[in-house]
Amino acid sequence: MKVALLGYGNVGGGAYDIICEMKGGLAVKHILARSIRPGMEAVMTTDFKDILNDEEIEIVAETIGGLHPAYEYVTEALKAKKHIVSANKQLICHYYSELMALAGENGVQLRFTSWAGGGVPWLFNLIRAKRCDEITEISGIMNGTTNFILYSMTEKGLPFGAALSEAQRLGYAEAEPSADIDGNDAQRKCAISASVAFEGAVAEDSVDVFGIRHITDKDIRAFKKMGRVCKLMVKAKKHKDGISAYVEPALLPLSAPESSVTMNFNMTTLVGKNIGRLSLMGQGAGKYPTGSSLVQDMLDIKCNAIGPCAPKKAIRADNSLERHSYYLRTSAITAELRQLGQMVNGEYIITEPLTVSEMHAMAKRLQKSDPDMFFAGIE
Amino acid sequence: MKVALLGYGNVGGGAYDIICEMKGGLAVKHILARSIRPGMEAVMTTDFKDILNDEEIEIVAETIGGLHPAYEYVTEALKAKKHIVSANKQLICHYYSELMALAGENGVQLRFTSWAGGGVPWLFNLIRAKRCDEITEISGIMNGTTNFILYSMTEKGLPFGAALSEAQRLGYAEAEPSADIDGNDAQRKCAISASVAFEGAVAEDSVDVFGIRHITDKDIRAFKKMGRVCKLMVKAKKHKDGISAYVEPALLPLSAPESSVTMNFNMTTLVGKNIGRLSLMGQGAGKYPTGSSLVQDMLDIKCNAIGPCAPKKAIRADNSLERHSYYLRTSAITAELRQLGQMVNGEYIITEPLTVSEMHAMAKRLQKSDPDMFFAGIE
Repeated sequence: MKVALLGYGNVGGGAYDIICEMKGGLAVKHILARSIRPGMEAVMTTDFKDILNDEEIEIVAETIGGLHPAYEYVTEALKAKKHIVSANKQLICHYYSELMALAGENGVQLRFTSWAGGGVPWLFNLIRAKRCDEITEISGIMNGTTNFILYSMTEKGLPFGAALSEAQRLGYAEAEPSADIDGNDAQRKCAISASVAFEGAVAEDSVDVFGIRHITDKDIRAFKKMGRVCKLMVKAKKHKDGISAYVEPALLPLSAPESSVTMNFNMTTLVGKNIGRLSLMGQGAGKYPTGSSLVQDMLDIKCNAIGPCAPKKAIRADNSLERHSYYLRTSAITAELRQLGQMVNGEYIITEPLTVSEMHAMAKRLQKSDPDMFFAGIE
Repeated sequence: MKVALLGYGNVGGGAYDIICEMKGGLAVKHILARSIRPGMEAVMTTDFKDILNDEEIEIVAETIGGLHPAYEYVTEALKAKKHIVSANKQLICHYYSELMALAGENGVQLRFTSWAGGGVPWLFNLIRAKRCDEITEISGIMNGTTNFILYSMTEKGLPFGAALSEAQRLGYAEAEPSADIDGNDAQRKCAISASVAFEGAVAEDSVDVFGIRHITDKDIRAFKKMGRVCKLMVKAKKHKDGISAYVEPALLPLSAPESSVTMNFNMTTLVGKNIGRLSLMGQGAGKYPTGSSLVQDMLDIKCNAIGPCAPKKAIRADNSLERHSYYLRTSAITAELRQLGQMVNGEYIITEPLTVSEMHAMAKRLQKSDPDMFFAGIE
């Protein structure tokens, strides 16, 4: 099968190397790049039309990132009946329903396993499990950057700023790290994973999110005293009357499998009525892990393996359906807050069970008087 | 697709329920059972020929266990060009090469995902990873019974006998538990997993094995002092000059992902040159987890998904290629043994690195004078 790559960065380059090494099955005919690299004149082009108009190209792998021109390239390629594989976080989340429908209309596939989990075949295994099971819950550590920061803070006692700098130095965090540390990357992965699991397009803005920007080394020390480990967790669950879906720091017991997820690894979990709990742990990012997921998507297209379906309906998460206790640390303690639970050492409150929507709404109010406040769920 | 089940025990019954609930894709036309259950006259038969001679039956699911008549049924069904899915531990290990070749000759598939890992799609993901990667290592906890025993001893301080009794009471261990506690079940899974990973039929008897029959609560207390957790680990690795493959108790640091595998769960890991480490954790046994793996195998046959290949060559594991330190506890301490490393509290020796083959051979010699001796690897 002839393949075109859009972009030749980290992930695109990884996929290219893997396909060249595989010798057989797939062949890269074109690579769209900003400029032609010496020695790669035969395969590189700067004109997307060379790819769009080449009838031999059956799969287009989009690794350029960002919304535009990725959206235009992908829609044009789908209309030209070319399969798409993509690792583009923003594109898939913003245009999930539209692109899935467009792929369906044109009788081609849109796959994005590498999109969530990097090298971890999370979405593939989720879709596969669903063939003969009802998924009741999904959860996990889906952002390697924040896991690396929390891991460094916990293991080395680093303050947040130093842990972030180390992550940036090692290439695990971007120069502008907001999407990771504020939880928006995990929020996108939560929305799409829940959409795949529960067969509806879960609206990204209905997924409550709270990140780790304001976690301190003092918080980490308090968690250690509690015998807990803090992880930024994605959670989505099917209830009788709807679906809950949220991203928040969670305090896990040391015995939880997620507690031993080190460095920038990911761990994702599904719970099915038949299979029970199934967790996958692996490299959530990186040139070759993510590149191999992209190549796996191409091979799954080639053998027509089971893939994601266009969502049947729109869903808004309802986080009043889920409740648990919280660790709440704020300098703006009021009599009202004290009534939520028990004050510990004058430093933080362990609340009685609150709904997730109550806690996230309260945090937004508290941030106005105490922008550095922090909370974490205790499940 | 019309399916026949051989056997209607735990796993067969689980698969039957799942297929009935799925509504579509698969239908169970016959179930071979010792006697016909009231109300199931339409589907049950006591005569295998009813299945063999029914041209509508495309898949035969073998869940009767044991070597005979399972072997005869499976070979006759393969020759009649029916696909086989099997959860039969003994059958697959004893006749792996022969049955894979016979399936290939008849243009049908033989799948056995449920065979190792129960509900965990381990073999499927291993085969899938191999499409675009070179597997360099596999490892993991592949026996739920021994994990439950070690977990109970570690968490509740139970002696071995009490932990085994509890496992039997809960249905996690058989009345005759030798195959589990002596490591032979894990040895089989090691041989077949290594065969799939490294594309050769790894001889079961070349996989060194040492179980947990002689572990004591005193050993467990010593491991706790060392900050380690004992797990019965399967290990296989590709070296420049061959393959090592063995099963032995291993002392893992608390931070190892395997250390947090509780109860009777399994965790299996592959390391690929591209993907890095990928681990899967889930229910290693049980009616519906194992039943769902069996049904997934049927669905993979239906959609002609990638499956296992007939092994290209015979391989014998060479465990002189792998070396590490060991915990060695024996009452038969000799001057020679003392030279292997450091004696601790007069109770056990922590050896300098030994090859795995040296340690396993030495254990066989020591057992003659001290049948209760125990060792565990420290990697």
